[in-house]
Amino acid sequence: MNETKLLSGFSKLTKEQKIQLIASFSDHPEAVEAELKLFWNNDPLVQKQFDEFSENTLTNYYFPYGIVPNVLINGKMYMVPMVIEESSVIAAASKSAKYWAGKGGFHSEVISTTKVGQVHFIWDGNYRDLKTHFPQLKLLLLARTSVLTANMEARGGGVLDMELVDMTSELADYYQLKVTFDTRDSMGANFINSCLEEYAIGLREFVKESGIFDSTTLRVIMSILSNYTPECLVKTWVECDVAEFDDVDDALTAEEFVWKFEKAVSIANVDVHRAATHNKGIFNGIDSVALATGNDFRAIEACGHAWASRSGKYRSLSEVKIENGRFYFSLTIPMAIGTVGGLTSLHPMARFSLQLLHNPGAPELMQIASTMGLANNFSAIKSLTTKGIQLGHMKMHLLNILNVYKATEEEKARAVEFFKIHKVSHNVVASFMQSIRNGKPIN
Amino acid sequence: MNETKLLSGFSKLTKEQKIQLIASFSDHPEAVEAELKLFWNNDPLVQKQFDEFSENTLTNYYFPYGIVPNVLINGKMYMVPMVIEESSVIAAASKSAKYWAGKGGFHSEVISTTKVGQVHFIWDGNYRDLKTHFPQLKLLLLARTSVLTANMEARGGGVLDMELVDMTSELADYYQLKVTFDTRDSMGANFINSCLEEYAIGLREFVKESGIFDSTTLRVIMSILSNYTPECLVKTWVECDVAEFDDVDDALTAEEFVWKFEKAVSIANVDVHRAATHNKGIFNGIDSVALATGNDFRAIEACGHAWASRSGKYRSLSEVKIENGRFYFSLTIPMAIGTVGGLTSLHPMARFSLQLLHNPGAPELMQIASTMGLANNFSAIKSLTTKGIQLGHMKMHLLNILNVYKATEEEKARAVEFFKIHKVSHNVVASFMQSIRNGKPIN
Repeated sequence: MNETKLLSGFSKLTKEQKIQLIASFSDHPEAVEAELKLFWNNDPLVQKQFDEFSENTLTNYYFPYGIVPNVLINGKMYMVPMVIEESSVIAAASKSAKYWAGKGGFHSEVISTTKVGQVHFIWDGNYRDLKTHFPQLKLLLLARTSVLTANMEARGGGVLDMELVDMTSELADYYQLKVTFDTRDSMGANFINSCLEEYAIGLREFVKESGIFDSTTLRVIMSILSNYTPECLVKTWVECDVAEFDDVDDALTAEEFVWKFEKAVSIANVDVHRAATHNKGIFNGIDSVALATGNDFRAIEACGHAWASRSGKYRSLSEVKIENGRFYFSLTIPMAIGTVGGLTSLHPMARFSLQLLHNPGAPELMQIASTMGLANNFSAIKSLTTKGIQLGHMKMHLLNILNVYKATEEEKARAVEFFKIHKVSHNVVASFMQSIRNGKPIN
Repeated sequence: MNETKLLSGFSKLTKEQKIQLIASFSDHPEAVEAELKLFWNNDPLVQKQFDEFSENTLTNYYFPYGIVPNVLINGKMYMVPMVIEESSVIAAASKSAKYWAGKGGFHSEVISTTKVGQVHFIWDGNYRDLKTHFPQLKLLLLARTSVLTANMEARGGGVLDMELVDMTSELADYYQLKVTFDTRDSMGANFINSCLEEYAIGLREFVKESGIFDSTTLRVIMSILSNYTPECLVKTWVECDVAEFDDVDDALTAEEFVWKFEKAVSIANVDVHRAATHNKGIFNGIDSVALATGNDFRAIEACGHAWASRSGKYRSLSEVKIENGRFYFSLTIPMAIGTVGGLTSLHPMARFSLQLLHNPGAPELMQIASTMGLANNFSAIKSLTTKGIQLGHMKMHLLNILNVYKATEEEKARAVEFFKIHKVSHNVVASFMQSIRNGKPIN
């Protein structure tokens, strides 16, 4: 298909018709159809549900669903489900989890759980007038959403506060209604957005019809939750005596290891090139849990990275402290995550994940997800500052490379044996496969 | 399982054994086994490949795989595959794509494709000495990786440059070897990391054995690629006459729409709460393409968000400009993405996605992914500044909510009809379902 003609009505086609259309652009339409249908679920009802999660859906994209055992958090043991396409993330998390389980495990504390939404508006009136009448406006607006918020209030949440923010120093005539919410165990996007759109209508009416602001013009630009939730914050840490790292590496004493570890974190604090990669590794752990539990990882990433730049410089999200011979390693991160609503109960495997975690509330899931972030971060820094990251990572990736060469089970077994003592790289694996297939194995 | 006893050897169990073990913690072990196996592929060889992507894998986690038709970029028409769990992202991208295809489509230009890696080290010697001898060191280091880089050089890539960076103003005795790479169509992580680990060995040897730096101590902290790639940059934009927006909304003239649109982007430039959400919507589009093509979305997110904070304040990634009656809307974003290596050819659906895109190189995929980012951003701002986002989003989400209530096909049809004229919310859908099941439909 290299024409520039517009396709009309694609979304109206059935899934079968969409697939046929796409296959028709190929030289091998039957192969395309077969490929797409290979990943359908056998049960048409199960499949239909996945088809309805999104639009123009043709099939399923598989991600490996794995398990990290031995995750001890606040004295409670978890098997944490992780969904991740990158090899070695689950292995690294597992090593880290087991290591820390032997030292008291992870400690985690939810500092706050407040969500934020905003009505952004441009208004050419006098700020003082609006401020004077804001208490009335606030009552009026809150009354408007009483039906919408009733259910959330019954669950102990709802609207926490509403403030008027003067943003005119940033942009002419720009103000906000900034509203804070407690959305309990839900991520809360739909709830917050529905409330805000109602506030926008109420605000417009008030300015137009209260008789107070006669000759002014108010234009609501948009009403939308914020994915930036610095007041929905969790802190997770591990700690132990420095001396306990004595057996962490053959070549390093405990003091040397801790010294290098501390430098690695300091570097991520002063160099943006390192900070992005350092934090990326933290999100490997967090996003894997978000994916496995049906949460929106884009929201979590946007929030965490924006927060990493709050000082005016993009920095490490984790911190290390050595005090009186004790090592403290912590991650403090904002995270809006849910255990009810959205896909959490709709996606069968998300539901399964939450069951496996003993049906946590949102704060507990914040603790679990941030723990996996810290666990992966610890493993990454430990590998980087000792053996380097390639050794372990490429060993994990070996089976993937062998699959490129369509290695048989017997060839795989021989390769695994060979690469126990040789360094894995694409080139060397290629040579190895060629050599054993030629009947001339290399040593 | 609420014990705190450590599980040993979990990774060594077969997949079947792992599943049995996990099922054994449940009150309904058969149900757990059945649930996990429900998502296995029928073909054991296909399934095995997915099992080997990661570690401790039990089954597959499905994501809906959908298609955005009518994506016109630089005069070439694409059907873009998107993998995303969030409803309405594909619908929004599709609307935006079709809209802009009628106005010349998207324009996209790859500005640069340079990747970065660093050897971070602490050294107590004199910077001037090292700087003086750096040209020798550089030659020596580059020679060390000639075998590693041969293949990449044959493809036109390789090491571009190596510099010594004095970071002592940030951290005592801290320096970097900062190396730039051209990794052609691969994301390049393994290639870069393998080179860097070799440079670290060479650097240590040089300082220790060249006889130049007798009484100094050099400690390599780590050698690792950077996910922050500001020199791997793509710019994508749309443009049209302002007057062309005349029919964009019933309630707004073209000028009013453009005015609101411009304000919405300006707000995302001055307010971090809005910026994070604004950029999150851009990543909805980009990540969907990254997922569909087997790319690492954590790397792309870390890079893009860190870049959004480069001015010292976290800001909008997209920009709008109105000049001489013309509207320009652009997204400039760094993105390290690949079309060879990693999972791109291993994951059957990633391979399929690349075929559907006519097997683009990495620069073309940067253009496609950033286009979907801009397309989603345009749709989001358009919805937010006109009808609000809830109306469309909740319509898309309606089928998901109905699935919670296990609605039959007939009930779904009645609900879709009802919600054509009523506002969708969880509460109202619940009432609607209850009412039709009681035989007392509400109006």
